[in-house]
Amino acid sequence: MTVSIEDIQQAAQRIKPYIHRTPILTNESLNQQVGVQVFLKCENFQKVGAFKFRGASNAVWSLSEEEARRGVITHSSGNHAQALALAARMRGVPAYIVMPNNAPQVKKNAVVGYGGQITFCEPTLAARESTMERIRLDTGATVVHPYNDERVIAGQGTAALELLEDVPDLDGILAPVGGGGLLSGTSIAATETRKGIRVIAGEPEMADDAFRSLQAGEIIPSLHPKTVADGLLTSLGSLTFPIIRERVDQIVTVSEAGIIAAMKFIWERAKIIIEPSSAVPIGVLWEKKIDLSGLRVGVILSGGNVDLEKLPWQP
Amino acid sequence: MTVSIEDIQQAAQRIKPYIHRTPILTNESLNQQVGVQVFLKCENFQKVGAFKFRGASNAVWSLSEEEARRGVITHSSGNHAQALALAARMRGVPAYIVMPNNAPQVKKNAVVGYGGQITFCEPTLAARESTMERIRLDTGATVVHPYNDERVIAGQGTAALELLEDVPDLDGILAPVGGGGLLSGTSIAATETRKGIRVIAGEPEMADDAFRSLQAGEIIPSLHPKTVADGLLTSLGSLTFPIIRERVDQIVTVSEAGIIAAMKFIWERAKIIIEPSSAVPIGVLWEKKIDLSGLRVGVILSGGNVDLEKLPWQP
Repeated sequence: MTVSIEDIQQAAQRIKPYIHRTPILTNESLNQQVGVQVFLKCENFQKVGAFKFRGASNAVWSLSEEEARRGVITHSSGNHAQALALAARMRGVPAYIVMPNNAPQVKKNAVVGYGGQITFCEPTLAARESTMERIRLDTGATVVHPYNDERVIAGQGTAALELLEDVPDLDGILAPVGGGGLLSGTSIAATETRKGIRVIAGEPEMADDAFRSLQAGEIIPSLHPKTVADGLLTSLGSLTFPIIRERVDQIVTVSEAGIIAAMKFIWERAKIIIEPSSAVPIGVLWEKKIDLSGLRVGVILSGGNVDLEKLPWQP
Repeated sequence: MTVSIEDIQQAAQRIKPYIHRTPILTNESLNQQVGVQVFLKCENFQKVGAFKFRGASNAVWSLSEEEARRGVITHSSGNHAQALALAARMRGVPAYIVMPNNAPQVKKNAVVGYGGQITFCEPTLAARESTMERIRLDTGATVVHPYNDERVIAGQGTAALELLEDVPDLDGILAPVGGGGLLSGTSIAATETRKGIRVIAGEPEMADDAFRSLQAGEIIPSLHPKTVADGLLTSLGSLTFPIIRERVDQIVTVSEAGIIAAMKFIWERAKIIIEPSSAVPIGVLWEKKIDLSGLRVGVILSGGNVDLEKLPWQP
């Protein structure tokens, strides 16, 4: 079982009342800088400040009344946790969020602010999973994985669907890759909607497990990733890997300096707040490791959740 | 002679091919925070990152061929200098910019980047004016004042005109006030387009010369203004003061803490970069010194030019 274009189209209908249809921005300075006509799909303006709200909403609204009543559960400390909490609140059902006890206060506050019920655990994967399993057994809540979940993948694909509705004649589409939920959904939406479109992913050099996985032909786990793009630390999943292998033309790695330069350029010139993970596909254009000159390229800006007290270009 | 709604409408036609028609954003978190339905007119997305490009463009494109050929001149180190340089370059004519020799490097670079020809002088008003006069006599260039100029006022008014085209049923409109070019143009556009609309200005408490001028019934110069909103340091001019006195309902002062809190909130929630001056009218809503609850209020976000190395909420 995998995800079809129909799944993405149905997801788009299902979540339409709840999400923002985000705008597409263009920027002349950026086009000149990179020699590409760039169309920025602004998921930084999405609810909770990230594309993650699409997948979480699709998962929550795919549940039966009976399932929904028992709630949803995930272990995450990032945007997915916030997204799931808000999506659940909008349906009026509980969201149980398992978080490591060393998660930053700002992330805890955000989840609580969206109505999520946090359970803290030790900061290990084993503790997260056993804690989640205990709560799941207690409550009957449905697990919603951040990316290795068909409903989530289909939801994330709706951003590319909208982009191609608004700008149909794209030559290529760029997205970041972490666990691969966004990239999987994007690649299905793009290749099924527009024949011959190139799907390219940006990945931090310092967390290049997806790049290496494609080369190896099997999932290479992300062992000690260390990148400013903290949304891209995870490894590909059993669902996302085969989709990406089939549909993505290329994964291009980006240096930390390239990510930061691209991010700062977007802030300075486009006047929008993007998070480092969003700057990774811009970094692909910035570092010009592949030739896309003169082409029309859409970029999914994944989100805009940044700690404004501590910016990556500051000492 | 003053500025009429026809002047603003003509300006809108004149500059239409050169400017961005900037989007209007709304933000649910902001509305909830301030209890007002807010419509943000995003001049931070304007060319050169500020509304100033409207007035400068209108001035440059109002010139006859003969006048234009001799160029334009101003003394400014801020957004107006950049705006005038770019507007002149787009018409293919010279822009002479007189700048104090202690102007920040980033501002010099920006003007040069837009093709302006800088002449440095001592950092006094007398030196600026005498230097400008010398170059004007040499070149025959036309002086374009940053705000005390009918063409500039008419150009700045086009932002409010667009806002009211897109959202006709506003109860009020808010803009910041420094020299009063934006506020003058906004107040003419708003009151002539929509009867009974309230025009309210935000001004930093620490640079409250316009507030005091309205109270005194005469222009009170800004003596030692010291505010984070560095675009609002100047005093009202002989053209802007009478327009503002006639058409603006109220000037509301905003504390430094209110400006910074409002700015940070917009960055965090709306995910757009606004400069401190843009945060001043948001600060009016934020500090709730006047009751606008439940109303539909447009806010002109003046610009997004910020030194990203040094943000006002950082120590």
